[in-house]
Amino acid sequence: MRDIVIIGHKAKTDGDFSLNDLPGSAGRMDILCRCVSSALFLSFGMRRDVNVHLLLLGEPDPGKIIRFEGLHLRYLNPDERSSGSLIQKALKKDATEQDIRSTPGIWIRRGDLSFLLSKFEGRTLFYLREDGEDIRAIANEIRDPVFFLGDHVGVTEEEEEQLLKAGAKIISVGPLSLHSNHCITLVHNELDRAEAQRGESPGEIERWIEN
Amino acid sequence: MRDIVIIGHKAKTDGDFSLNDLPGSAGRMDILCRCVSSALFLSFGMRRDVNVHLLLLGEPDPGKIIRFEGLHLRYLNPDERSSGSLIQKALKKDATEQDIRSTPGIWIRRGDLSFLLSKFEGRTLFYLREDGEDIRAIANEIRDPVFFLGDHVGVTEEEEEQLLKAGAKIISVGPLSLHSNHCITLVHNELDRAEAQRGESPGEIERWIEN
Repeated sequence: MRDIVIIGHKAKTDGDFSLNDLPGSAGRMDILCRCVSSALFLSFGMRRDVNVHLLLLGEPDPGKIIRFEGLHLRYLNPDERSSGSLIQKALKKDATEQDIRSTPGIWIRRGDLSFLLSKFEGRTLFYLREDGEDIRAIANEIRDPVFFLGDHVGVTEEEEEQLLKAGAKIISVGPLSLHSNHCITLVHNELDRAEAQRGESPGEIERWIEN
Repeated sequence: MRDIVIIGHKAKTDGDFSLNDLPGSAGRMDILCRCVSSALFLSFGMRRDVNVHLLLLGEPDPGKIIRFEGLHLRYLNPDERSSGSLIQKALKKDATEQDIRSTPGIWIRRGDLSFLLSKFEGRTLFYLREDGEDIRAIANEIRDPVFFLGDHVGVTEEEEEQLLKAGAKIISVGPLSLHSNHCITLVHNELDRAEAQRGESPGEIERWIEN
């Protein structure tokens, strides 16, 4: 299983935004939409072994988490507007401290970074930063990882402190500073290659389900 | 310089489509928009050493080429709607056999794959296909490349024949079949890493221009 957390510091926390203006009215929700797409799509199907967690910290009700479960997802297309529309639908639910199912494979709840870190206790945590260790050097050893990424403003000092305290390892994906969705594509590729080298077949679950 | 060609077999060739429905009304223009974004954006700026060529083959007037020049581009944001809007603006120009400038860094003209192949004569051509040679094995030797990618329907047999006849080498980016925009991110990363290893600084042009 690969879990990917993206922190959206400005992302709106109610459904009151226009799908025609995801960058503006929705607080750079376009970034999160692209991350969802990069995390979940293969050319002819979906990565069923991936969950995406969007931590939304914008106004008017900061601290909501929307979870996309690759295994159960339906109605998601790769375009930004498609994930934007499913996010908006989830945000129209009354979020509580419990998971509420919005559409197949999409859940919403209240929560913050501490909640996510306690949920992932025992897993191998990675935090992506430009000056981290090159993932390519360690991809072969990675099993059952959770990746944390920031949005256009990165990760705050306080969040970084929480991540490091929880044992997250800092990794990077290359020599240049890239958008979060591009980093996700690169992380997947390193793990796909490592799995293929080990003779594992990353697409197997997908094919099994489709049949 | 890196040139990237994406063939959009269904992509509309007039500006008569809705930005609210890039996948449907615009003939999977969403795919091309994501490719533009992956090809050109760095975290804090643009890849000034990259040109993107969208070959549009859909109705009603097949055979138009829109060129995004990283060096001169303005008004492009990373969201799909932003590139979609600039593509629409270019398609509203009367395209001829000569380049016509639409907005800064964006040009449109009539043309087909043969035209592009003759334009790139002398360059090193690569065609991305799942079963190609791993780019990672040869990234260090690549200089001044042109990459050709298909859309959701791939590349037709006839196009493939043209590409191979022009000397294009078939390469792949990993063990799984991925969306074109994800392939572009991976190609860039391999070349960025190779350039960094050689002590070249891929972001240099960008910084020079910004100052």
